[in-house]
Amino acid sequence: MNGRSHHLSQEGRVVALCGGVGGAKLALGLQHVLGERLTVIVNVADDFEHLGLNISPDLDTVLYTLGGLSDPRRGWGRSDESWNFMEALKEIGGETWFLLGDRDMAMHVERTRRRLSGESLTAIAIDVARRFGIRSNVLPITNDKLSTIVVSTEGELEFQRYFVGRRCEPAVKQIRFRGAESARMTEEVLQSLDAEDLGLIIVGPSNPYLSIDPILAVPGATEKLRAARVPVIAISPIIGGQAIKGPTRKIMDELGLQATNGEISRHYAGLIDGLVIDTTDAAGAADLGIDVHVAPTLMTDLQSKITLAEHALVFGESLRTKRNRQERRPSSGGAP
Amino acid sequence: MNGRSHHLSQEGRVVALCGGVGGAKLALGLQHVLGERLTVIVNVADDFEHLGLNISPDLDTVLYTLGGLSDPRRGWGRSDESWNFMEALKEIGGETWFLLGDRDMAMHVERTRRRLSGESLTAIAIDVARRFGIRSNVLPITNDKLSTIVVSTEGELEFQRYFVGRRCEPAVKQIRFRGAESARMTEEVLQSLDAEDLGLIIVGPSNPYLSIDPILAVPGATEKLRAARVPVIAISPIIGGQAIKGPTRKIMDELGLQATNGEISRHYAGLIDGLVIDTTDAAGAADLGIDVHVAPTLMTDLQSKITLAEHALVFGESLRTKRNRQERRPSSGGAP
Repeated sequence: MNGRSHHLSQEGRVVALCGGVGGAKLALGLQHVLGERLTVIVNVADDFEHLGLNISPDLDTVLYTLGGLSDPRRGWGRSDESWNFMEALKEIGGETWFLLGDRDMAMHVERTRRRLSGESLTAIAIDVARRFGIRSNVLPITNDKLSTIVVSTEGELEFQRYFVGRRCEPAVKQIRFRGAESARMTEEVLQSLDAEDLGLIIVGPSNPYLSIDPILAVPGATEKLRAARVPVIAISPIIGGQAIKGPTRKIMDELGLQATNGEISRHYAGLIDGLVIDTTDAAGAADLGIDVHVAPTLMTDLQSKITLAEHALVFGESLRTKRNRQERRPSSGGAP
Repeated sequence: MNGRSHHLSQEGRVVALCGGVGGAKLALGLQHVLGERLTVIVNVADDFEHLGLNISPDLDTVLYTLGGLSDPRRGWGRSDESWNFMEALKEIGGETWFLLGDRDMAMHVERTRRRLSGESLTAIAIDVARRFGIRSNVLPITNDKLSTIVVSTEGELEFQRYFVGRRCEPAVKQIRFRGAESARMTEEVLQSLDAEDLGLIIVGPSNPYLSIDPILAVPGATEKLRAARVPVIAISPIIGGQAIKGPTRKIMDELGLQATNGEISRHYAGLIDGLVIDTTDAAGAADLGIDVHVAPTLMTDLQSKITLAEHALVFGESLRTKRNRQERRPSSGGAP
């Protein structure tokens, strides 16, 4: 067998870290290529309790997307959704700032019930994924409580209060992850990162500050990526100096960061071996001081998701080959 | 002023005890005549926890019915209801034996949240009634936990498990009310029964064993009715030897009771001053050993509900006049 027959598109496991919408889109593309060889590790720091229910926005976006149940236009929630619960909730004076669809409610009610009965977020995600016919593995980074807190000009806000309740209007001064010190990666996450046949780790094109950083804030997670025997690549969320989804651009401005691939590259420095950037940003590739792969990163339809997934795998494979070559030449191992 | 000017249809308060469907129909008729002078005291022993939510079936039926939101054909739940929550719950393996509509869910989720935050069932019912534009007063008999337990050939079953889950199939050996010893009538219920201008207490045409008995099982409730300064009348749920709604007939058979007005009259003996029976059962009126009023008790449309309500008020008024006459003739007070 030669290198080509070991190609990631044919064998080997891949772990992808992701938040909600953008990360879930890439995960869908990866699932099409990799099937059960894909494990998606999902941010849970957007999770919050609302109306007495445990809501896990990113986990649900990934489950709905990989299960083929997500609404393609809205970007969140389920397709063929109805809103009668919200309408009736309004009639009796309930809080309506966070939209919950009628079908979506089943997930929140049932998950809350199962968690109260002692089941872990992981066990429930695995069971729901199986019921949705999802071939890939979907794992929350932790079963412990972890909350993104936006320190803003209006004080400290839980993420959904900032994001949905205040529509990202308050200026962000700092972002911190409450509960990160005591959160633990799950056994399932550790197994996926330690798998013998792991070939690549992909940091999805999610918001680095709001979706990826909380994953990396769980003790041991950053170290795992730094020490990985396999390449770690990131897909940049920047396209032509714009963050396509979510409040990335505004937050970067407020934190004094430029919405550029240079900034993304610096942010992930020491953690990733390569960065996938959009074709519109190809001109700046040489200045990033990191291995770069140029590809169309705007995922509008299923084919564009699959195409980006294939680019990521090809890039990962090339970095693996390069690494193997370097390992075969130990004299060059410590060279600058 | 003479007796006629004090007529209940013009002034004085009325308290009605009721369970779900049948009682709620009469309550709607009474509300049309009495408006805010009506207080409906509702059974809560069918309440149960399901999917982590507090469900109060009778209270909701009364609130939806008086608010003009109930489904007239189904007999329970809301009109213009959708069932997407249930469909999605089934997909993820949740319990689907108890149907919860999408609009109805708002009540359960919001009430559960408010109760967990310390609000009483009564305070929430009063607020919801106000928001629904209900003119009458809707009060649960107690804020405490009270549960109808059906002792059946399949063991002890919580009411909804027996009624919905097992479709009343197990034979009933005994009915008991768990928590009755320690339950307390609410301040609001006591005030309604002690009101200076109270003119009549009506026991609705609900199931005596499943809907009215648990109200009467709350310590002090039976005594309040026995000691009432005003007439207490019941509307019989029997029509032509049949209980129209629910499992009354089957349960009466299994408990060795005949589905007759005689049995209803014996059941409420000492508690009520008069019984309203259906026109189809008029022949047996003389044998009941109690004051009887004959009226059409089948409530098919709004007009028939109002008509029955007016009959109940006229009957109550006549018993009040009779009582006043007896009080004016103290020598006959103790006569047999």
